[in-house]
Amino acid sequence: MAREGERGQVKLLGATLSPFVVRVRIALALKGIDYEFIQEDLKTKSELLLQSNPVYKQIPVLVHNGKPVCESMIIVQYIEEAWDNKAPNLMPKDPYDRAIARFWAAFIDDKLFPYLRAALFGQGEQLQKAVEDSVTNFLLIEEALRTNRCFAGKAYFGGDEIGLIDIALGGMSTFIKAVEKATDSVLIDPEKMPLLTAWMDRFCKSDGVKEVMPDPVKHAEYLCARRASMVSPPTAN
Amino acid sequence: MAREGERGQVKLLGATLSPFVVRVRIALALKGIDYEFIQEDLKTKSELLLQSNPVYKQIPVLVHNGKPVCESMIIVQYIEEAWDNKAPNLMPKDPYDRAIARFWAAFIDDKLFPYLRAALFGQGEQLQKAVEDSVTNFLLIEEALRTNRCFAGKAYFGGDEIGLIDIALGGMSTFIKAVEKATDSVLIDPEKMPLLTAWMDRFCKSDGVKEVMPDPVKHAEYLCARRASMVSPPTAN
Repeated sequence: MAREGERGQVKLLGATLSPFVVRVRIALALKGIDYEFIQEDLKTKSELLLQSNPVYKQIPVLVHNGKPVCESMIIVQYIEEAWDNKAPNLMPKDPYDRAIARFWAAFIDDKLFPYLRAALFGQGEQLQKAVEDSVTNFLLIEEALRTNRCFAGKAYFGGDEIGLIDIALGGMSTFIKAVEKATDSVLIDPEKMPLLTAWMDRFCKSDGVKEVMPDPVKHAEYLCARRASMVSPPTAN
Repeated sequence: MAREGERGQVKLLGATLSPFVVRVRIALALKGIDYEFIQEDLKTKSELLLQSNPVYKQIPVLVHNGKPVCESMIIVQYIEEAWDNKAPNLMPKDPYDRAIARFWAAFIDDKLFPYLRAALFGQGEQLQKAVEDSVTNFLLIEEALRTNRCFAGKAYFGGDEIGLIDIALGGMSTFIKAVEKATDSVLIDPEKMPLLTAWMDRFCKSDGVKEVMPDPVKHAEYLCARRASMVSPPTAN
């Protein structure tokens, strides 16, 4: 409902249910940055999206004073650095802790997400394999939560406050639950992953997050419908 | 030839021909950081490597004061931040320019490298497709060199000095040329990509780079042999 000009400095091209867009919205909300949300229709991408992200043509894109920034975790780091005077800090100050934060954020995108996606659109053995690989990766995160000196025993991966890894993983919370629902599988078993389960619950309820998290029911309905359309395409006759 | 204790603070676990290791060696050389290079045998990975990078079990790993940092571009950013008092700056100061640097560095890993690898080990149509996709991506970089206000008309992507994108792409220089040789294809056509060709030549000759770049002939011989072993495995009888 923002009027053009009032929030015109910061625009976010996105879609409500995209976990990558959710990440950016969390970062903006935590920093208290006012912005205009432009809902993209991914079947008919806007001229602004195509011009702003000519390489990937994907959401999210943050347009700040007319200049586009692409790729969700690059946008989150940009938000941290462009508004470094605004609390909270989304990155640790210590170079080693920053490297650890970047490592796990990259792990979530490079190693975790592809298997979640493969599970969502897989069937039979492919689905089973993708679920197993996803569980293996979630167990690695559980182990890190238990032992890594940067975040073991703390409320968030970022310590007392939400940071880069929280946003990278937490932005996918309703997506992960929706994949579980759509594939009728358990990816985060509370018994085997008590720390991860408690963290996700805490994260989703926290201020700045709960306001922008997709509705879990709607998210599950949406992914169930997408899965159905992908794995059982209408037969042409 | 470093004696343990003398350079013991910084260790790099690597292999001479790995483009990802080359990146780290360039960053260390540019910053003038003394380190011990530990050559890994990738068929029999060392206990130190397995302990330092339990998630990926891959080189490079930088061990600084006993603490491991993994993933080449995360290591390069760590080097910049842990030795921020040492020139040159490997990252721009401006947040937007930093986002652009991260975007293209990620593009090189996520979009360019997978096709180079696919070309190296591909045959027939797969090889042809991977070469075409690689060329498409190199043309996007040529276009960025021509038009992006962050680096158009400058000596390096980093401006007057070598920066993040230079290291990400330039560290692959002999690898790219070796893939061309091994697959008998042209990936960087000097006529179609004059800026990229000139940049790569300038980069490879620059101080701090030329000392650690693999020998192009040896690199090509190595990849030709690897390709031969992968695409024509010895027949068991």
